[in-house]
Order: sequence, then structure tokens, then C-alpha cells
Amino acid sequence: MIRFECDYNEGAHERILQRLMETNMEQTSGYGTDGHCERARMLIRQACDNEQADVHFLVGGTQTNTTVIASILRPYQGVIAASSGHIAVHETGAIEATGHKVLTVPSEDGKITPEQVRAVYDAHMNESSPEHCVQPGMVYISQPTENGTMYSKAELQALHTVSRACGLPFFVDGARLGYALASRACDMTLADLARLCDVFYIGGTKIGALMGEAVVILNDALKPDFRYMIKQKGGLLAKGRLLGIQFETLFEDGLYLDISRHAIDMALRIHDSLEQQGVRFLYDSPTNQQFPILPDRLLEKLRNGYTFTFWEKVDDTHSAVRFCTSWATQQENVDALTRDITQLLHGEIHVPERVEALV
Amino acid sequence: MIRFECDYNEGAHERILQRLMETNMEQTSGYGTDGHCERARMLIRQACDNEQADVHFLVGGTQTNTTVIASILRPYQGVIAASSGHIAVHETGAIEATGHKVLTVPSEDGKITPEQVRAVYDAHMNESSPEHCVQPGMVYISQPTENGTMYSKAELQALHTVSRACGLPFFVDGARLGYALASRACDMTLADLARLCDVFYIGGTKIGALMGEAVVILNDALKPDFRYMIKQKGGLLAKGRLLGIQFETLFEDGLYLDISRHAIDMALRIHDSLEQQGVRFLYDSPTNQQFPILPDRLLEKLRNGYTFTFWEKVDDTHSAVRFCTSWATQQENVDALTRDITQLLHGEIHVPERVEALV
Amino acid sequence: MIRFECDYNEGAHERILQRLMETNMEQTSGYGTDGHCERARMLIRQACDNEQADVHFLVGGTQTNTTVIASILRPYQGVIAASSGHIAVHETGAIEATGHKVLTVPSEDGKITPEQVRAVYDAHMNESSPEHCVQPGMVYISQPTENGTMYSKAELQALHTVSRACGLPFFVDGARLGYALASRACDMTLADLARLCDVFYIGGTKIGALMGEAVVILNDALKPDFRYMIKQKGGLLAKGRLLGIQFETLFEDGLYLDISRHAIDMALRIHDSLEQQGVRFLYDSPTNQQFPILPDRLLEKLRNGYTFTFWEKVDDTHSAVRFCTSWATQQENVDALTRDITQLLHGEIHVPERVEALV
Amino acid sequence: MIRFECDYNEGAHERILQRLMETNMEQTSGYGTDGHCERARMLIRQACDNEQADVHFLVGGTQTNTTVIASILRPYQGVIAASSGHIAVHETGAIEATGHKVLTVPSEDGKITPEQVRAVYDAHMNESSPEHCVQPGMVYISQPTENGTMYSKAELQALHTVSRACGLPFFVDGARLGYALASRACDMTLADLARLCDVFYIGGTKIGALMGEAVVILNDALKPDFRYMIKQKGGLLAKGRLLGIQFETLFEDGLYLDISRHAIDMALRIHDSLEQQGVRFLYDSPTNQQFPILPDRLLEKLRNGYTFTFWEKVDDTHSAVRFCTSWATQQENVDALTRDITQLLHGEIHVPERVEALV
Repeated sequence: MIRFECDYNEGAHERILQRLMETNMEQTSGYGTDGHCERARMLIRQACDNEQADVHFLVGGTQTNTTVIASILRPYQGVIAASSGHIAVHETGAIEATGHKVLTVPSEDGKITPEQVRAVYDAHMNESSPEHCVQPGMVYISQPTENGTMYSKAELQALHTVSRACGLPFFVDGARLGYALASRACDMTLADLARLCDVFYIGGTKIGALMGEAVVILNDALKPDFRYMIKQKGGLLAKGRLLGIQFETLFEDGLYLDISRHAIDMALRIHDSLEQQGVRFLYDSPTNQQFPILPDRLLEKLRNGYTFTFWEKVDDTHSAVRFCTSWATQQENVDALTRDITQLLHGEIHVPERVEALV
Repeated sequence: MIRFECDYNEGAHERILQRLMETNMEQTSGYGTDGHCERARMLIRQACDNEQADVHFLVGGTQTNTTVIASILRPYQGVIAASSGHIAVHETGAIEATGHKVLTVPSEDGKITPEQVRAVYDAHMNESSPEHCVQPGMVYISQPTENGTMYSKAELQALHTVSRACGLPFFVDGARLGYALASRACDMTLADLARLCDVFYIGGTKIGALMGEAVVILNDALKPDFRYMIKQKGGLLAKGRLLGIQFETLFEDGLYLDISRHAIDMALRIHDSLEQQGVRFLYDSPTNQQFPILPDRLLEKLRNGYTFTFWEKVDDTHSAVRFCTSWATQQENVDALTRDITQLLHGEIHVPERVEALV
Repeated sequence: MIRFECDYNEGAHERILQRLMETNMEQTSGYGTDGHCERARMLIRQACDNEQADVHFLVGGTQTNTTVIASILRPYQGVIAASSGHIAVHETGAIEATGHKVLTVPSEDGKITPEQVRAVYDAHMNESSPEHCVQPGMVYISQPTENGTMYSKAELQALHTVSRACGLPFFVDGARLGYALASRACDMTLADLARLCDVFYIGGTKIGALMGEAVVILNDALKPDFRYMIKQKGGLLAKGRLLGIQFETLFEDGLYLDISRHAIDMALRIHDSLEQQGVRFLYDSPTNQQFPILPDRLLEKLRNGYTFTFWEKVDDTHSAVRFCTSWATQQENVDALTRDITQLLHGEIHVPERVEALV
Repeated sequence: MIRFECDYNEGAHERILQRLMETNMEQTSGYGTDGHCERARMLIRQACDNEQADVHFLVGGTQTNTTVIASILRPYQGVIAASSGHIAVHETGAIEATGHKVLTVPSEDGKITPEQVRAVYDAHMNESSPEHCVQPGMVYISQPTENGTMYSKAELQALHTVSRACGLPFFVDGARLGYALASRACDMTLADLARLCDVFYIGGTKIGALMGEAVVILNDALKPDFRYMIKQKGGLLAKGRLLGIQFETLFEDGLYLDISRHAIDMALRIHDSLEQQGVRFLYDSPTNQQFPILPDRLLEKLRNGYTFTFWEKVDDTHSAVRFCTSWATQQENVDALTRDITQLLHGEIHVPERVEALV
């Protein structure tokens, strides 16, 4: 079985394991106060071109989202997010468990617009009795989104502007951030992102690390006491060095972007192969997640050799599915996949009209 | 600087790192559904002599305590714990953050008694309007305790009995469980523990693993939907295999106990050396934490070469401090420590009368 | 200014005030343990034809919804509700503040269907990894709804059946329950409701009382320790008698239904007058809330003499508004309103095509 | 049965009921936006000699404490309180249910000292890793305390000073505030209190009102959005006028203090009568709660005719009990009580040596 159902099917990049071996018997202080964490923080600040940024290491994405959001909102505030946002649908109510509503706005492709943010804000402020409703307290987006799509620098700038105008901290979930940064369609840098949002994180779990997310806090108002929040929410790893060493490795000479680029190459290889054969895609994704629309009969057979994620029914005989690549994806597996799909498609695929209309 | 201030100063046991290397490019499904986790669960069930136990892997201690406790209590219930219990003092209010009060009972040495549990329960039930007070909903202990002390099998049996009689689930925090099991004073086994409590966990972070705690649920009523709780509280690691591989390694041939025994040997080496020189101890600890009472002037000098934890002032010129050993402690470091303390003590230590009375 | 913007513009029914005067210097025990509360509970049990029901008195609607829902759900569960449900939009995130997500389903008229409940349940249960999502834990409806519409007995029966089949407790918010029971279109009784749901409440605040809601718990599993929940959520009134006396008065000889009928009569008087003049309504409401669609220019003038609630724009020149009647509405005020609207409409109203299409 | 077990055994002062009757059919807007609430706010601002104060009306004490505290604390902060404080022991964990720990300090008589506040603060700030512990975030006291004792102006000033020095908002629970202000031993005024704390409330439930507490916010930083908090926590009464009318009546011509004085007179009548007969008291209370130590055999007989609260065993044959008076206490009932105690005491009371030593 060859796996494409997610981007965390393997362990860690070999250089990370190597570094863990080399440093294993070093004695360090705990909870992220060691030298490896300090160096990793410094490297990330440099990559963000912001010497004043606070950098913290947490273990996973749900934990990070919950900790950041709970640290920002007042008890009666909620977070604006796409209806497809990870915090809205795939975290078992972790945000609500800290007392906050996710204020969703509809999204076709995982992205939200400045107009939507402004509309939620204005609608609330224009209520005759706003105190009967949850107050919008911040803006959450994922870059890239859960649908593989990506915000351009101009779009981020516009979200920054509207958030600032409404007094809403702007938080970017970067669980797959490398796969945006390394995309050929990407026109923003880490430094751009650090300039345009109040807090974001750099995902490690899905990009080369065993686990770990690096939170970067830019807005001074959000910096104090963040370690209390991490500890309370269960994210302050005793052997914090484990996170420091990993991010040190990922950021000391560009490894993070290098391995992200590999994932993009592999994703495009899938994309281009299928596109050449007339396959349509549910989303126009330039990142590591690809959402082709394929005949159900084909998918049934494909499941014998590959794992991937069912996304949604598109018509009576076709479904959109998700293939993920990652830093660890092997080209031979990609080639096997595209070859097998090609064979299965041959003489079989007739994209019906309804799908054409849809995509 | 030689470190004794905690039991998580190093990385992981070399066999664990080795295994991570070997399995690194295996493709597995996520969130603990892989074969390594399955095998680790099986090994732990065997070690507990309970084939029906549910076993889950979480990342850290605070996270584990919060998740287990929040999964058990009704909204108006609290958890009975020693005033020195980890959940009461060192988790930044993580339990309260899930809505629950920690109902503390005083403890000299970190242990609580069945009489105390019964008293809290009876006091509540005898209230004329109990609904105005937090209802005791479960019992929490640490084995070994935060003070290095340990419950005997008979004491656990008695706590089991009173908990059962009061209808209170009995939860054992085993963040350092190996250091109890491997203690020469220990008369209980994992199987005993699994028979006597409703849920407990086996700490990996402090005993050989990079990180990780294995929750073992014995009481059927506590089993359903626990994975929802783990996910919501941020403990469901995407690459769950990372935890599975570690516990597999620790439990496939007794490594967990073997390396725990090493820590005990090192701790006793410190204990015996100091005791021979007339040093008194704050707690009578048979486990990996030792709490000698030493002259402040000696401690000041000792800090030049060693890290350890200040515990409390004992009199005007003496303090109790904590030295931790672990699976990773090197004997040469222990010998250097005891040698240096001996030299510093020589001609200097005069345990004052007040201390003698105290200890 | 004559007020129609809500159903709590006045104080209490005069018989309630009279009874408060008469009993004022009686000495009673606190927190709802007095004889008046006991008698009120008995009367409500009789009205519900269920001698085993637990009856509790709380102060207000948001408090009651929060207390009931938080008492039922497990930490990872959410409550299914209409997107227009009070708990979803007008309680400042009170449900989320207790840790729970409101799982909304779309609704045109405030009602939800058994098919929607089943779909939410099935969608969750068919997830490949359901533990990543909030688990549906109960069903919430309002009877009548926030849009003035009402469930028939058959519809309640169907919701009961699907809730039972899915193992979801079924909770009915009856903040305006009397205005459903007294509606000419109503085919259910209190006893029917008590047979078909697991817990509901009888609203007093909007129907004759100074304030107060009577929670009726039918399902034995939901009964234990509910007073702890009330106390913790701030709803256990010290002078509980104040609630007991009011519900005693409302239920000892049918006052609750009698005054509800008056509100319905007044609402229909508005409805029929406007309908005769060709006015359309946004919802087909047989209860005390009426939602006519009127010209914006008319509404602007009407605001000089009357308060009412803007509901939504219907087209460029028309809006839907809400007029509420209540137990206290005076017929002379209703007649003044309909007379003034009639005069304003005369020679002015031209329901445009778009509105016709809409309503 | 004559009741002395609490200060909420009766309804409301007759002038309040009279006013409710007079205003009953007035139409007003909801949720505290009406003219009565506005006037009550103005009167309270005047009484506090602070025109800038924000005044809000809530329904009950637990609700008010929860709402105020949850509005102030950050998620990782706790509230410093006496171990006997209402929030620590008699609110079913309402504070914890909003995520916050109550950081208790021991108290003999219900009061806490500036030294205790400073010690808690310093202990936290001097932790080597403070983020592992709950951060002190505010100070809570009750005036008068749950034990009938009272802070002097100088003591309040000192608590103000230390709170300010530590950056901790200072909150005063005034559920029985009138019974402090009207005490003959009281040297502070409402204006003093408003000058010395950041937020406090004026209790109505126990002093003349049917129910209701008036929160007075002095610190500008605590003012924004407080109505959101009230709504979310279930305290925003639909018919807010009900609270406005009551506080208007209590504060327009000094009624609040007048009726409080009556309660004090009645309490002192009990106190002086018992003291003359050699009865000792558990606390030296100048307010409406009296805690005499009486023979258990006497108490047993007294229960046939009177209700009062058992407080604690003092020795094998004596207990301290609590008698409460209130605005509604009738002198004939007080005289009956003291007469009956006197008769029961006659020839029976022998305060044993242990009690003498204790009190």
C-alpha cells in the first residue's frame, strides 16, 4: 500500500534524526529554555526578518490553534474563520472548549475575503443590542488552506488592512506553511507574512519534523505571558529541546524550504499528469494537496494499491479525492500512482456535463 | 555543569532512537492507528495482565492529567488530591481551565490517606445543602509522589476500597511510575496497579522516551469516546507512531523497568553517601528523587558545578534541595557529586537541633 | 410611544403582584425549598400529566438554556439547533462558554426537521475519524420558534422518534410556550410535550411573570444533581419563593393559558387587519409574533408612534418587521396600530413583484 | 417556626412592592435600558460620589461574582480570596467553571491581610518558572465577611495599596454591604469604598429587594463590554426594570441604609442579651450575623421553635451557631428568641474551660 492520504505518513527528515542522535546525551534545561531552542528562535526571527518576534514551540496544530486563540480572545468574543477552516471542523470543538465560538463565513475554496471580515464586523457593530451576540474578536485563516489554495501577498495585505481597521488580531495557521512558501505560485515570503499578521505559526509536523509547530508572535500586545497559556493547554514539552533541535535543523540552511519544494514538485507531477489526460480538479491548488475528480469505479480499484482521502461526491459517478505529497514522498511512488491512474482512465473517463459545469 | 535538577535533561534511550531511525520511512496511518501503536498497546496490556484495558498514548503529563480528569468529572464535580499534587500546584490551573476545582487535602509527604478521602466525601454528603458546594467526583494520586514517596500495595488497596465505596473513580498519575516499580521498597506490580485503580498512566517522558505517556483505562465506564477527549485537548499526535514506537521499545523486553532500576541505583548511591555522613533528608524517598538537607553555604558553592532544585528553607542556615536521577544519569556524575559534597561537608556540617527535631 | 418590539415590556400579571403582596412577610426557607415552590412543582406536574417529572425554577432563558445543555452534554459533544435558534445567535456564546459547539442546520422558518437531525447524526457517525469532529449530543428546538412558527404534534413526535433512534436527548425551549399552546393552530398539549421530549421549559418571563422559567425534566437519566448545575450557573435564586409564587399563580387555575390566549387574540387582530389590506407576511405565524412586510416609507413614519423590530430587508423598498403581543397587550393599542398602518397604507402600498415572489 | 437561618427569609420591603404595583403597566424597553434603571444608576453614582462609575444590575450573588471575576482574569490567572470566601466554598465551583482557580489564603475570621496578598504575589513572582503555576490576577474580599466581621477603612486602604502595587484589581463582594455600612463599628462610606476598590457590588437580595445586586465599576479598564459578560453569564434580565425599580427605591431617600440599620439593631439585641448572660461568640461581629457558642442540649431544644445555622463544634458539648437578622426581622421574634435562650440557659450553661480558651 502506497500512502497519499496525508502529509504525515513518515517519520522525520533524516538530518533531524541525525541531529537528535548527536545531541542525545547533552544535558539541557527543560521546557524550551535550552540553547537549541534559543538558536532555533534566533534562526526563525532571522527568516522572518523581525528581531523582536517572540517564538514559541508547541507540539501539534490543534493545540497551537487553541492556545493562540484562547490567549487572544476575551470571554465573549469569537474568531472569524472559513466554514471549512480546521478550527471550525476538525478539532473536536477545541476552540469552543476554551469558551469561544467560531464565527464561520462561507467559502468555496477555503479562503475568506476582506469583504467577509468587514461584513461580519459591521453586522455585529450595527446590531441594536450587540451584547446579545458574540463579538468578533480576531481573524483566522490557513495558509495554504485546507483545500490547497493559497492567499497572494495582495490578499494577505488586504486582510491585514481590514483586520487592522476593525481592531481584530489577524492569525495565520501555517500548519502547511512551507507548502505555500515553496509553491511556484507563491509571491509572499516569511518576512511578508510576519509583516502582515499579528501571529502565525510555522508547521513542522507536516514538513520534516517528528512533530512541532513554531508560533511567531509579532504584535507586542499578544506577547506577555504566552508561556502560561502554553503550559496550561498542555503544550509545554518537558524536553523542549526536542522541538528546538528540529527547528534548528530546518532553519539553519534552508532545509525547510528545500523539502517543501520537493513536495510541491511531487504534487505538480500528479497534477500535470492527470490534467494532461483531461482530469478536472475540484480546487485550483498550487500546493501539496491535489483534488482531482475521478470516476468512482476507478477510485474503487485504485484503493487496492493506494491510500487517499475521499473529499466529496461530484455527480452520480464521480468523486473528488485528495492526494497529499510531502517532504518524504518518493518519486517512484508518484510515478506508480500516475501510471496506474492513466491505465485505469484509458477508455473509461467521460467527464459528464454536470462536472464540467461544476469545476 | 552537571545536571540533577530534573529527570528530563537528556534525550531518549539509544534503543528508542535506533528504532526511530529504522522505522523512519515506513508509511503508516496517523493518530495512533498504526501497527506500532497497536503492538505497544498489546505489550502494555500484557504487562498489566489485563487484556480488556484501553491504552492511549498522549504527549505530556499536564495534558494527560487534564484529559483524563476532564473526561471523568461532571461539570459540578472536583477532584480530590494532595495539596502538593502536580495538578494542584504545577499545571497553571489546567484542571480549572476545564471547569473543575481541585479539592486539596493536606499532605506532609505527598501521599493522601483513605481517611482523608472518606472525610472529604462525608463532609460533602452531610452538608445540608450540598448543591452549594463542589461535589467530590474522583480521587487523584501520584505514584511515586512529587516528594519521592511511594504508596505500598496495601495503601493502594485501601484507597481503592474507599474510592469504590464512595463511588469515586480512582486515578493514578504515573509520570514517574517506573521509578516506583523499580524501587527496592516497592511491593506492587503493574498488574496490581491495574487491578486497584480505574485509570492510570505510565510515564515515558521521564523514563527513556523523548516524550509520551501511556494512559491505561481499566474501568469500562471510562472507556467510550476517550479519543474525542484526546483530540479536543490537543493530545492526538498526527504521527502517533512516534509514541507507539517508543512504548513498543520500552515494553517489548523489559527496558522500561531496567532503565528505571538504573535511576534508582544512582539515587540510592547519592542517598547512601550523604546518609553515611550524617545528612538528614526531608522525605524518606526510595525513588529517584532525593531531598537532602544541606547547609546553605555548601549549596551556594555546589551551584558552581551542579544544577539541582531548591525545595524549602529548613532553618536559618539549612535548606532542603532535590536531586533527581534518571535512566540517563551517569555514574561518574553521581560520584563527582557525592565526592564534592563530601569535601564541602568536611569540617563544616553541624546539623542544628532544630533540624534534628524537624526531620 | 406604544411598544410592540417584544413581549416583556410590562411588569407582571396583577394576580401575581397581588400574591407577592399577600405572602410578602411569610418566612420561608431559601433556594426553592419552600412550600410555594413545592406547590408550583406539583401543579406543573399535574399540568404535564407526569407525576415523576422533576421541576426546577430558574430566572431567565439564556441561563436556562445554558444550564440544561451543559448538564446534558459530554465535553466533546455539541447541540443540534436551527441556525436561527436562540442559543445559536442571541446568547452571546453562552453555550460555547460552557465548552460546547452549537451544530446548526439551516432553517427558513425557525423549524428543523427529523431528516436534518438524522443527517447530522449520520454524517458524524460515517466519518472515518469521527473523533476529529464534535459529536452530536442532543437536539434543541424552540416551541414556538423565534420566527413565530410552531411544530405540530406529529412533527414533535417525529423529532422525538429520530432523537430516540440516535440516542440524542431532545430539549424544547419553551420561552414562549404558552403562545404555542394557546394558538388556535396548536394540536399539542403540555402533556403531549412532556411525553415527547426529555426536558423542556415553560417560559414565565414573557408570559405574565416578572421573570422565571420552569424546567421540566422527564428523562430519569437527566435528573440527578441538576440543582448543582443551577447553582453553579448562577440560577439558584436565594428567594426561590419568588419563582414558586409566580408559577403557583400561573398554574393553579389556568391563568397561564388564559393570558396566553389574550396575546394570540391580539396578534391575530393585527394579522387579520393587515392581511385584509393585502399585506404579506414573512412567516406564517399563528403565535404572538407577527412579521408583516411593509413599505420602508410607511415604517419610517410608524416609528414616530410605535416600537417594533426590524427583521430584514425584503426588497429595495420593503422590509419585514416584527410586532409582538403579550399577556399585557391592550386592545386599544392594537387598534391604534392597525388604524395607523391602514391610513399609511392607503394609496401607498404596491407590493412589488419581487416581494410577491418571495412570500 | 421563627426563622433566623439566613437574611432572605421574607419577600421585599413594602415600598418596593408598592412601587412595582404602581409601575406595573408602564411600557419600557428591556435589558436594563429603561428609565428606572437609568435613574437607579444615577442615584448609586451619587451615593458613591463618582459620576464616572459604571453601574449594572444583576440578579444574584454567585452570578455577580462569576461575571465580575471572569471579566477581569486572563485565562491563566486566579483570584486571591480567603479560604472561607463565598467564591471558595459556596458557589459550586462557579469560578472554576469559568476556568479560574481560587487562590485561597487562610483566615480565622473571614478577613485577609495585605501581607497575605503580598506574600501570594511575591511567592509567584519569585518562582523560577512561574508559568507552571496560576498567576495571581485579582483580589477578592467580602465586606462584611461571611463571618460577620468587617474591614475598617484603614484596612481597605491597605488592601487597596497592596493591590495597586501588585497590579491586581481589587474586587469587593458586597452581598451584605448595607449591613457593614450601617454597623455602628463602621468607619467607611460607600464613597470610601468606591475610592478604594476597582469594582464592588451592592447587595439587594439580602437587603430589602426581591433579588438583585448592583455592580459598580470604578476602574476604567474594567468597564468596556461588561454587558456582554452579563448576557453570556445569564444575568441580563429581560425585564431589567424590575431591578431598576428596586434600586431606585432603595437609593432615592436612604432606604437602603435605614433598613440595614434595623437589621443591625436586631442583631445587637441578640448579641447584647446573650453576652449579658456570659455567652461567648465565635467571631466578634458588629453586623447582622451573630455566632454565639451555646450548649448542644440547649440548641437541640431551641430547634423546636427557631431555625438557625449550625456553624461548627467548639467542644464536646458546645457548638457555634449563626443567627441572621435582616431588614425584615421583627423585634417580637428577636425578643422571643432571647427570652427562650435565657430560660434554656438558666441553670444550665457552664462554659467549659476549653471554650474559654478558644474564644
